[in-house]
Amino acid sequence: MDPEIVLIGAGNLATHLGKALHNSGLHVAQVYSRTEKSARTLAEAIAADPVTSLNQVMDCADLYLYAVKDDALPEVIRGISARAGVHAHTAGGVPMSVFEDMRDQYGVFYPLQTFSKEKPVKFRAIPIFLEANTPSGLALLHVVAARIADRAFDLDSRQRETLHVASVFACNFANHLWSISANLLAEEQLPFDVLMPLIWESVAKLHALPPEKAQTGPAARGDASVIARHLEHLAAHPQWQELYRTMTELIRKKAVEDQAETAR
Amino acid sequence: MDPEIVLIGAGNLATHLGKALHNSGLHVAQVYSRTEKSARTLAEAIAADPVTSLNQVMDCADLYLYAVKDDALPEVIRGISARAGVHAHTAGGVPMSVFEDMRDQYGVFYPLQTFSKEKPVKFRAIPIFLEANTPSGLALLHVVAARIADRAFDLDSRQRETLHVASVFACNFANHLWSISANLLAEEQLPFDVLMPLIWESVAKLHALPPEKAQTGPAARGDASVIARHLEHLAAHPQWQELYRTMTELIRKKAVEDQAETAR
Repeated sequence: MDPEIVLIGAGNLATHLGKALHNSGLHVAQVYSRTEKSARTLAEAIAADPVTSLNQVMDCADLYLYAVKDDALPEVIRGISARAGVHAHTAGGVPMSVFEDMRDQYGVFYPLQTFSKEKPVKFRAIPIFLEANTPSGLALLHVVAARIADRAFDLDSRQRETLHVASVFACNFANHLWSISANLLAEEQLPFDVLMPLIWESVAKLHALPPEKAQTGPAARGDASVIARHLEHLAAHPQWQELYRTMTELIRKKAVEDQAETAR
Repeated sequence: MDPEIVLIGAGNLATHLGKALHNSGLHVAQVYSRTEKSARTLAEAIAADPVTSLNQVMDCADLYLYAVKDDALPEVIRGISARAGVHAHTAGGVPMSVFEDMRDQYGVFYPLQTFSKEKPVKFRAIPIFLEANTPSGLALLHVVAARIADRAFDLDSRQRETLHVASVFACNFANHLWSISANLLAEEQLPFDVLMPLIWESVAKLHALPPEKAQTGPAARGDASVIARHLEHLAAHPQWQELYRTMTELIRKKAVEDQAETAR
């Protein structure tokens, strides 16, 4: 028997999640948003009832999925009186203890992806990270996750923080490197997108090789003369010069360690 | 009238380049490699003559493209007696002056991509960067580039160095960030590929937004409590903690500058 689901929120994540649940054949009974238009738009798309007040949220659903902004979460939880069912938020950075004393069964249902409202997303490819305070709650989250995605992982709050830190390095920090590249190119009137084929290929390589094996460039090769020229080239940007030096040292250190590893 | 081309080298780049030239209808007359098997394999694929000795390289071609390792380049240039025609190397990190006094017309024909032997590559999407010591040499390089790729740019040696530095940030350094992420995840027994959908999406976003506008995460938001938790989380890895701090400061600084810019 399929669980009855209430979706709290109608933003980017709620929209993609709601559609994925609906398309999988699951029934989303209600969509809550304090903005009537948002509630109605999403509810219509997934054959749910829109509600705009927290006290209209039904008492007897099996699963309540909270897809609201991190800092709105405590207030929304307090505003909903339903104690029955499993209550799970979707926020990577919030511990499940946010529900403590307010619900009996609770947890986290965290799809690791960045969502834009217009852009469709292949939900099946997104890994979902689950945590719950009871075995039956966790089992329910797994059942629902398996309907919409290929991979679900049990993850406690400590591990989820590791995942968050790792994604900051992999995405936020990588993006800032691209921003530095864009700046350097702009100084020579070159468009950033000349780098796109190279960036795509660097990412595509990760499907064949782990990143440490895929490492190329002057630092990995230990090409001191190129590194010296590049550092000189960055003289007008001391902070980027310093970052170049730091990254090069980290890559060198890793390359030397790996060589020692292989030699052993 | 199409130029007659000699291809010096039969490695990854030479192979992809030779096939792209051949598929565009251009005639590659000779392929040189000191390894007979490599010369023959590529020559057969593109209906060229294989040669394995530098003194067999013909004298009267219109264009000589050198796709050999950077450090092999000076010796290969010395070994070829042909003075006529335009001589261009394909190395991003080598100035065109490597040909000086050895040839009359010379330059650089640099396709910005990383090539693997087995993996096919859409050459048309790769930007090619051109430089030459004469207008007619540059014109010939443009004609050939236009046959195999959608975009070609004139780029002097100084600009090419900027491009190289930018690609080190965008690809080599980004890859090292992925390597750090992989390490952090491995400590929690999580596979790196859980991050792949997020990494793909971060790159896909760059087609819609310049990287500085695409910046997200705790640093961009100025979320001090998350940043503090992440730094604490990285206590066991002081170098990564330091890198986290540096990247966060750079992103903060940029975000604050951009806000000031908008307010003006």
